[in-house]
Amino acid sequence: MARQVLDVIKVAIVGITGYAGVEAARLVLNHPEFKLTFAGSQTFKGQKLCDVYTHLRGITDIVCEEPDVEKIAQAADAAIVALPHGASMKMTCDLAEKGLKVVDLSADYRYDNIDIYEKVYGIKHEYPEWNKKAVYGIPELYREKIKEAPVVANPGCYPTCSILGFAPLLCEKRIDPKSIIIDAASGVSGAGRKSELSYSFCECTENFLAYKPASHRHTSEIAEQFSKLYGEPIKLTFTPHLVPMKRGMLVTGYASLTKEASAEELLELYKEYYKGEYFVRILNKGVYPETKSVAGSNFIDIGNATDKETGRVIVLSAIDNIGKGASGQGIQNLNLMFGIDEKAGLSVSGLYL
Amino acid sequence: MARQVLDVIKVAIVGITGYAGVEAARLVLNHPEFKLTFAGSQTFKGQKLCDVYTHLRGITDIVCEEPDVEKIAQAADAAIVALPHGASMKMTCDLAEKGLKVVDLSADYRYDNIDIYEKVYGIKHEYPEWNKKAVYGIPELYREKIKEAPVVANPGCYPTCSILGFAPLLCEKRIDPKSIIIDAASGVSGAGRKSELSYSFCECTENFLAYKPASHRHTSEIAEQFSKLYGEPIKLTFTPHLVPMKRGMLVTGYASLTKEASAEELLELYKEYYKGEYFVRILNKGVYPETKSVAGSNFIDIGNATDKETGRVIVLSAIDNIGKGASGQGIQNLNLMFGIDEKAGLSVSGLYL
Amino acid sequence: MARQVLDVIKVAIVGITGYAGVEAARLVLNHPEFKLTFAGSQTFKGQKLCDVYTHLRGITDIVCEEPDVEKIAQAADAAIVALPHGASMKMTCDLAEKGLKVVDLSADYRYDNIDIYEKVYGIKHEYPEWNKKAVYGIPELYREKIKEAPVVANPGCYPTCSILGFAPLLCEKRIDPKSIIIDAASGVSGAGRKSELSYSFCECTENFLAYKPASHRHTSEIAEQFSKLYGEPIKLTFTPHLVPMKRGMLVTGYASLTKEASAEELLELYKEYYKGEYFVRILNKGVYPETKSVAGSNFIDIGNATDKETGRVIVLSAIDNIGKGASGQGIQNLNLMFGIDEKAGLSVSGLYL
Amino acid sequence: MARQVLDVIKVAIVGITGYAGVEAARLVLNHPEFKLTFAGSQTFKGQKLCDVYTHLRGITDIVCEEPDVEKIAQAADAAIVALPHGASMKMTCDLAEKGLKVVDLSADYRYDNIDIYEKVYGIKHEYPEWNKKAVYGIPELYREKIKEAPVVANPGCYPTCSILGFAPLLCEKRIDPKSIIIDAASGVSGAGRKSELSYSFCECTENFLAYKPASHRHTSEIAEQFSKLYGEPIKLTFTPHLVPMKRGMLVTGYASLTKEASAEELLELYKEYYKGEYFVRILNKGVYPETKSVAGSNFIDIGNATDKETGRVIVLSAIDNIGKGASGQGIQNLNLMFGIDEKAGLSVSGLYL
Repeated sequence: MARQVLDVIKVAIVGITGYAGVEAARLVLNHPEFKLTFAGSQTFKGQKLCDVYTHLRGITDIVCEEPDVEKIAQAADAAIVALPHGASMKMTCDLAEKGLKVVDLSADYRYDNIDIYEKVYGIKHEYPEWNKKAVYGIPELYREKIKEAPVVANPGCYPTCSILGFAPLLCEKRIDPKSIIIDAASGVSGAGRKSELSYSFCECTENFLAYKPASHRHTSEIAEQFSKLYGEPIKLTFTPHLVPMKRGMLVTGYASLTKEASAEELLELYKEYYKGEYFVRILNKGVYPETKSVAGSNFIDIGNATDKETGRVIVLSAIDNIGKGASGQGIQNLNLMFGIDEKAGLSVSGLYL
Repeated sequence: MARQVLDVIKVAIVGITGYAGVEAARLVLNHPEFKLTFAGSQTFKGQKLCDVYTHLRGITDIVCEEPDVEKIAQAADAAIVALPHGASMKMTCDLAEKGLKVVDLSADYRYDNIDIYEKVYGIKHEYPEWNKKAVYGIPELYREKIKEAPVVANPGCYPTCSILGFAPLLCEKRIDPKSIIIDAASGVSGAGRKSELSYSFCECTENFLAYKPASHRHTSEIAEQFSKLYGEPIKLTFTPHLVPMKRGMLVTGYASLTKEASAEELLELYKEYYKGEYFVRILNKGVYPETKSVAGSNFIDIGNATDKETGRVIVLSAIDNIGKGASGQGIQNLNLMFGIDEKAGLSVSGLYL
Repeated sequence: MARQVLDVIKVAIVGITGYAGVEAARLVLNHPEFKLTFAGSQTFKGQKLCDVYTHLRGITDIVCEEPDVEKIAQAADAAIVALPHGASMKMTCDLAEKGLKVVDLSADYRYDNIDIYEKVYGIKHEYPEWNKKAVYGIPELYREKIKEAPVVANPGCYPTCSILGFAPLLCEKRIDPKSIIIDAASGVSGAGRKSELSYSFCECTENFLAYKPASHRHTSEIAEQFSKLYGEPIKLTFTPHLVPMKRGMLVTGYASLTKEASAEELLELYKEYYKGEYFVRILNKGVYPETKSVAGSNFIDIGNATDKETGRVIVLSAIDNIGKGASGQGIQNLNLMFGIDEKAGLSVSGLYL
Repeated sequence: MARQVLDVIKVAIVGITGYAGVEAARLVLNHPEFKLTFAGSQTFKGQKLCDVYTHLRGITDIVCEEPDVEKIAQAADAAIVALPHGASMKMTCDLAEKGLKVVDLSADYRYDNIDIYEKVYGIKHEYPEWNKKAVYGIPELYREKIKEAPVVANPGCYPTCSILGFAPLLCEKRIDPKSIIIDAASGVSGAGRKSELSYSFCECTENFLAYKPASHRHTSEIAEQFSKLYGEPIKLTFTPHLVPMKRGMLVTGYASLTKEASAEELLELYKEYYKGEYFVRILNKGVYPETKSVAGSNFIDIGNATDKETGRVIVLSAIDNIGKGASGQGIQNLNLMFGIDEKAGLSVSGLYL
């Protein structure tokens, strides 16, 4: 694409009134080279986005519109699709065929193995050819492919946090692939903007629980990516938890080391593996990730500990589930697809407080 | 002990202004057979307890006093000692020697193996003979011994939740003892009533983190008890987390099954094992514990899931960290020590809301 | 009523799966003289109450039933009706006509002046004769009438907190009736158990707002009661707020003093006025109510301050909005209606923590 | 000052490890024309700022230093002083005398009437001449003076929210100056970064309270500014509250209207008064401010309601207490002092979620 340096890149967000959608909007609105030109929302069409999300008052007057493919194609160079799984499939394909670069936040184009996708999500995949063209969007692992991709399948939040946390150990075969257990926890925004009783304030606050143990859909996504990194099929146990907070995700992962290693040695391995990666912060020995350090940002913090008694490594990684775990990474991918600075629009620190 | 049925049992609480102490007070004050006769607090001596803990206004006018052994012995038949580790050691011994039945909430008398205690807590144990007499206070496992014990060492919160969660699997040798990983999470009250920055509201809320991975002191307590239940030495990996909520604890434990089993089969095993245990609630298949179900109560909720892909069981158990995890269990132990109904003073349900 | 002392009083709760309903259930289940014999719920009929509210596991096995008047009348001596305004009207009347003593938690029988009720709630009152028989249920003000009442109209949470906070000043005519402003705040449970987006965790937490300024329905209820206490019609300004917490309510009320008075003098007036009232705790000068002191209990804490510069008194009162503000007071009323100890079932302290 | 357009403005922050200090740092680090060149902290000197505030990892490597006037003067063109009241007085004066433009976040230079300052804060003012030169830093009211000021006294959070909320009514004399009552609420960060028990998580969460009724120091600051706007001395009643959330402040203000007016009419008056003010968002009738709309930003949202029954207006205004209420406004002032775009570095929207 022969884009002039100073052109503004026009971006559509489809499904803009979900939490991932509006976080993408926040980032696009503060991006030096992107311009939000289309706000797609079935539910809120005709309403100003800033009437639905009041933090955007004075920031944008854009009005939500029916997500019509023709109109989007006229309005935008790129699209971030933040629709539910299944609904996203056709929209992403249609926009890509119109020549837009598309980042799809759903699971629809994430799997190499469509059979697994179809089984896990219970949906027939209608566009296997586009699935082949789509690239799995973790820039730290697939940067060059992402640059050329017409469609990027933005990874799930648990997979992003797990894959970046385990990649060095898998690539270097430092862990027994049969021993992996991932225990993870997410803030409530991970469930989306929903008027369901179980996500109501009084039901969530002062409560902590595991959900879908050994049966969460992200298990298969993690397993496919882990297998690719390791070079052999990997099965793992995955248990997500719900934390009474808005944003944030922590992975506490366990695996048996193939040979003894100290936390320092492993952290060195990580520092080497992620050398030059701006958004990956490897912590020093004895310092562990906390979600408040990454909330509101595109960073991932990774630390670890080793358990000499049992020969295990404990991998700890933290992201903002709708930042690096969704829309932040989506912007990072879009930056790459347009050949601009990967950090553009993502340089503001999060809010510790 | 030839106690008359209608006698009131006079109870002292030493260290009453900590969170475990005041929860013990709340329970004693609502107990049909106990009477709070001594409120020991170094820091707040001379002040009314209800001026320190305002929910007790109108409930009690007791004044905090210097915790003097002679005075306590004159005032009470029994004592709940809620002092820090180390400080508790002498107080418990002194009161026991005066003939009081003592429940010690600290770690000082919890270990069969004093060497491990001394190493882990960095304190020399001065009263090994009392350590031998003390009984580890999980009524569901050691009821008969507790009834006769002069001193009960009340277990830690993580150990209580872990031990009750794994006991049936360990006793029945259904899991590989080398495969055990315990991932646990606690509300902030577990840290005690402290004016430390890291437990301040702004630092804790909207934050989730792991702390002391592979190095928390409760690991050794859990390991000793697991080893006793299994009949062979067990090592395990343990990682605690901090949840932005006041009360509640969840254990998510992992182990490899020695032979395939469904969640139902294992739940049946649990139901059989805990038959007649009022405070242990085994959940049905597909129902998982949540901390809000047990907050404010002495119940433990236990569920599980099995991961066919990896041959693991996932044990899920929830308690109130200062209920069944501390003062609730303390009262349950004291009831047993005095030969009264184990449920006395513990029959009020918790607060879901 | 010639009730034998040892008879158990059978209580039905209609609308038991709302937050006020289940709090009533918690209190009835722990009441020494009440027995929960009917659990009415349209939505959850056929389900065990403890499957809907998991803190009641092991406490009760009662199954929710269609709220049929005949069945309720056979099952119970008394009913607590926790239905929405309007729906409660007929149920309360029907049960009262069957001879049950009824505490209605709705607004349907709260107004002396039916015209105001009909205007404010937009509902025609079908049972004006029962409205006349119903007594407004603040025991501290109307104890003797409540003892004889067939139906008690349990006050709203904001009215309870406001009326008890202002009663001594109104009765003693210490304030200018034209100067009253009530600024109040409630925890989210006040909105009921609802799957509405605006009460979802992510929308409520880390947020504070005023709602319905100068237009909340409780304004008229407060005004009618204030007028009765003062002996002349009173108008006031009332603004409620929503606090990101589950339980708790604070009233901060303002009025101009008719003659100068110190905080101490006014607190003396309060102590005299509420002499012997167990559930009213008048704080000392310089100590102000906090919601955590009353959460989970039936207490009201009242403090005040005076502003010499402006000649105003600031009235501060705190309750648990579903305790003294709803179900706790409902039990207190039911105790009076049956001639038993007013404190029965309400003596457990709340949870500070 | 003959500054070249492309020069970077070097900014020191003194007291950078408090909550207002680090929020200033976050904003300076994201500012297109400012550069953080000095991080002053007594407590954390020698430590990297990003080790104290982990959200700044990868954003800055600046090391905290002893706040030495000479060094600061060499390092910076401007300073934001975020020291406690009293300590700030000398630092501000010393830096201003060195020629730095200074924004002082403390109360030390906020009062025209030094007597009131000395009485309220209990500190003798050592630099009355600098107090005269200092300008009270609300840009919407004193923009032209701020542009020329060597020192700007940044207003308190409650005063900012109250003054902007009432200014149009005061200037237009639409309210009775004797009738003003301000009821306000703040998130816990308003108390600063403190290891005090009363700000610990377990003591703050699920709690709501009023503090310092009729005796908070901000009352006098508000009164002085109100008097200036109205043209006559004004006394008012002010009650702050503490909300269990990190950031956010809401003012609910009351006053009697001098003549009847609808909410719409008054909102028109506000829109006219604040015409062109980017950071002031006047809401439409029936829409009320919520703190989540402004959290993390420099905006103030203002709405109102009128109470026909009592002839009062209810003013509602919301800010982020450490944004527009402290450091955001500090940056806005600094922008003005350097003649650059007032919005520079403040254009990122807050986080609704």
